Parts: sequence; C-alpha cells; structure tokens
Amino acid sequence: MTGPARLGIDVGGTSVEAVALDADGSIRARTRNPTERGEDGVVRSVLAAIRALDTPAKTIGIGIPGRIDGGRVHDAVNLGVRELDLAGEIWRRCGAPVAVDNDVRGAALGAASRTRAKSLAYLNLGTGVAAGIVVDGRVIDGSSGVAGEIGHLSIDPRGPQCACGQFGCIEVFAGGGSIARRAGEPLERVAERADAGDESASGILADLARGAAAGVRALALAVDPEIIMIGGGIARRGERLRSEIAGALARAADGSAFLASLRLEERIEIVSPDDAIGAVGAALLGDRLGA
Amino acid sequence: MTGPARLGIDVGGTSVEAVALDADGSIRARTRNPTERGEDGVVRSVLAAIRALDTPAKTIGIGIPGRIDGGRVHDAVNLGVRELDLAGEIWRRCGAPVAVDNDVRGAALGAASRTRAKSLAYLNLGTGVAAGIVVDGRVIDGSSGVAGEIGHLSIDPRGPQCACGQFGCIEVFAGGGSIARRAGEPLERVAERADAGDESASGILADLARGAAAGVRALALAVDPEIIMIGGGIARRGERLRSEIAGALARAADGSAFLASLRLEERIEIVSPDDAIGAVGAALLGDRLGA
Repeated sequence: MTGPARLGIDVGGTSVEAVALDADGSIRARTRNPTERGEDGVVRSVLAAIRALDTPAKTIGIGIPGRIDGGRVHDAVNLGVRELDLAGEIWRRCGAPVAVDNDVRGAALGAASRTRAKSLAYLNLGTGVAAGIVVDGRVIDGSSGVAGEIGHLSIDPRGPQCACGQFGCIEVFAGGGSIARRAGEPLERVAERADAGDESASGILADLARGAAAGVRALALAVDPEIIMIGGGIARRGERLRSEIAGALARAADGSAFLASLRLEERIEIVSPDDAIGAVGAALLGDRLGA
Repeated sequence: MTGPARLGIDVGGTSVEAVALDADGSIRARTRNPTERGEDGVVRSVLAAIRALDTPAKTIGIGIPGRIDGGRVHDAVNLGVRELDLAGEIWRRCGAPVAVDNDVRGAALGAASRTRAKSLAYLNLGTGVAAGIVVDGRVIDGSSGVAGEIGHLSIDPRGPQCACGQFGCIEVFAGGGSIARRAGEPLERVAERADAGDESASGILADLARGAAAGVRALALAVDPEIIMIGGGIARRGERLRSEIAGALARAADGSAFLASLRLEERIEIVSPDDAIGAVGAALLGDRLGA
C-alpha cells in the first residue's frame, strides 16, 4: 500500500521505536534510534524517528512515560522531562495531527490489536510496573492520569519501601528498577546467580513472580479481562517468566476455590519486548484524532 | 407521568427493594418486602415486589447477589440459591423484558445516575466487599463475572484468613460478615464498645477503615474514577465512616507524595443504604434491553 500512513512512536528510556502502519494494520516501515534526554532531546529524538520512517504521515501517535494531559507530558523522570508540549512541538514541525498518551496505555492498544479478545489488560514489567486496560477496544484513561498504576498497590505492609514512599508495593517486588536497587545488580545477573544456586537471588526471582501475580490478580478482580498480556524489559525472560508467574498464581489459588475458579494462569501471555506493540499501539492512538 | 415504567428490583439478603422509574428517572413508586430464601422463594419475593409496585412494566431489571450469566443466577449463597433462571421465570409470569445483573454492578449504575461524573466506582461494604465500575455510563461487566470483586485482593499476607481461603483480603477487614465472625457480634455492637473505650473494638474499626481505604486505592489505581461512592450496610455509619476512611487514606499518603497527589479523600462519598440506588440501578439495567 502507498499513501499516508499512521506513524507510531514509542519513546523509551534508551531508544525510540517507530512504525508506519498501513490502513490494514500491517507494518510498512520500522525504525529504532537512541533517545536523547531533556525536553529538547526528546523532541529531536521523535523527529529523528519520523525522518527515519521516511513515510508521509496521516497521523502521528506518540507513547511516552509520564503523566499526559492534553498532549503535554509532565514529570517523565527517566527522560529528564519536567514539562513538554510534545503534541504542539511535533505538530508545528510536521503538520500532521498528533496524539500523545502514556506509553503503557499506548502499548495496551497495541497488545489489543494482536487478539480478538473483547477485553484485555497489558501489564508492563519494566523499570516500573504499570498496566493499560482495554475494554471494547477503548483504553481506560481515568480521570487524573493514573489509570493502570497498579504497581503502587501495597501487598505487604512489612515489605521493602517503594520509591513512591509506601511499603510493599507490587513495583518493589516486580519492577526492574527496584530489583536492581535491592540486588545491587540488574535482573539478568540476579537470574544467573539464581541458576548457579544462589538462594538470595532465587528469593528475588520468587518475589518478582509473587509481585507480578499480585498485579495479575488486581487486574482480574478489578476489570476481569479475558487476557492479561505481560510485556516490558522483564518479559525478556519469556517462557520462564510465564511459568514462574503461573506458579505463583497457582500457589495463591491453592487454598482458595474462588481464586482457582478464575483460571488466571490460563489468561496470561508474555509479549516479547522485541515485538513492536508499543509503537503499533502509539500509531493506533492516532485513530482517536478522526483524521 | 403515566404509562409503562421501568421497574427495578434489588434482591437483598433480608429484603427486596423495588422502584418504578419514570422516563425522566424520577421514582413513581417504591416498595419493600421480605426476601424468601431458595430458588422458588426468590421468584416469589420478586413477583411480590412487582405486584406491590402496581405499575405497568416497560422493562424489569433485577439486581441480585451471585454470579450472573445470561439472566441465570449461580451460587447466591446468602439467598440459598444454587442456580436459577431468574430472567426466564419472571418473563414467563410478567411478559415484560427482563434484565438480571449482579446487585453491586446494578447499584453502581444507580450511583452513577446521581452524579455528572464521567467515571465512578461504587464500593459496597455489606456482608462482603465488592465494587461496580462505571466508565462513560457503562458498567464494566468483565469476562467471567468477577469484575469489581476487589474484596478478595490480599493486602497483608499475615492477616486473618478470609472465607475465600486467602489471608488478609480487603473483605476480611472491611466486610460485615467477617467483622461479625471475628468480633463475635455485629458491627453496631463493636462500634458501641469502641465508643465506650474498648481497645479491641477500636482496633476492629481501625481495620475496617484500613481495608476500605485499600479498596479505594485499588479502584483508583486500576481505573482512576472521578468519584468513589461507598454504600452497603456498613455505610449506615455515615459521616463517621467517611471520616475514618479519609483518615486511613491520609495516613497511607503521609509518606508518599504520589498517593497524596491523588487526593483520594476528596473523591469518596457515602451513600446512605436508605437511598434506593440498588433498585434504581436495577431499573436502569432494563435500558440494556432496548425495549
């Protein structure tokens, strides 16, 4: 197909993933470039991605961390962005309609495009833990920009302190940033030590599975989606992660006929971070513009 | 107004509340009769309510505890109902279109009709704890009938065991049934003892506020509604309950700028159980039938 495409830009902490999507949803072009930090850096990185796609734009959708409010980005801490009118900046330079939303909610739209399920939650296990919820094809945005921030539900008042100030949040157990802080090394090294028989490393992996399982239960008991897709950097563990979370779900359901009846371990799927659901979902954000 | 009305029947554990709703949403008639137990008893109780309303029916909406699936009621334990084709039974006897849904999800629709908020959660603190979530005027039904069952999120692995088999569920702390079991007396007696200075009774009330506050946070971090209305039998505590939950929310937010920024204590409202939101919401269920 030719003609203008829906561009989707997923701005991550280290790289910008971008796709150009045809009307039928197939990917016409796909690129990746490094993320520059700061307000100006982020705008430059997004423009570089748009140039690299080299495709006329019907709409431009951008997924980016932080609190989003009418095309403006607030407090994207990992990107060094305090406040940025991203939609305005890109629109002024490209002339195409621009939609901006939180990266996890954007990825949830991308995940939903991969399934026929009517309702879906996307649980992102990255540096932090957050989710996007899609019901009847629409992402739940919430009234103040925190829909899906289930990483900050506390599941154990005696647990370690979270960066948010609470104790025992899901994110403390299942977020890559917190795991690296507690272990003094990134998850991949923890996993290697666990494979070598290190008990403290195995405990961290067990906590990760327990935290992720609690996130799955929170999503199921709040909105009861057909499928819960799990993505983000930690999802690179792939099938091992799936089986560890399924095990934690089954252990919790062991004494509870109610939980067992929900068959949650059958509802989870792992999305590879190499899959471009963040950028695809960002491209679908553009459909909101009615262009 | 005259002509056929939308009838709404809220089947509770002890009584059936019913309203006849005019096209403009005003209540034309309102009745209450005792609930009989068992499949036949529930059908008789609903028919008695319909007769007592003495109003021609455009639609009949019924809210009832239990898992609902295409007009059938499963496992409404407190009503002694194992399985009942309630929509079919009432339709055969009355000839009007019948919609059946879970009582809490029905009440959420009733609560939503009282506010201009675009999104709302209704948190029911009754014998058990459950919620209904309304986004853009529609209740989230979920894929397997458990949307809103946040009472069974565990907030403390060392907490008391819940009837569901898990430990430290929100319902263990904030459900009337569990409170009565733990205290050996109903909540009203516990509250009297707390007023008289009994420390164990005060501890139970503090647990109630802590559990309800955790429910409010779970709803806020999952779907971020503008308003969280709190109803059910425990809501008879009224303003005291509101201020106890607001206090528990504020204490949890004390060390967390993130939680504090959500201003959850400003989002909660108490609905009096004397308000007929369950029956009104049931009447609104009938609008799904397109009759």
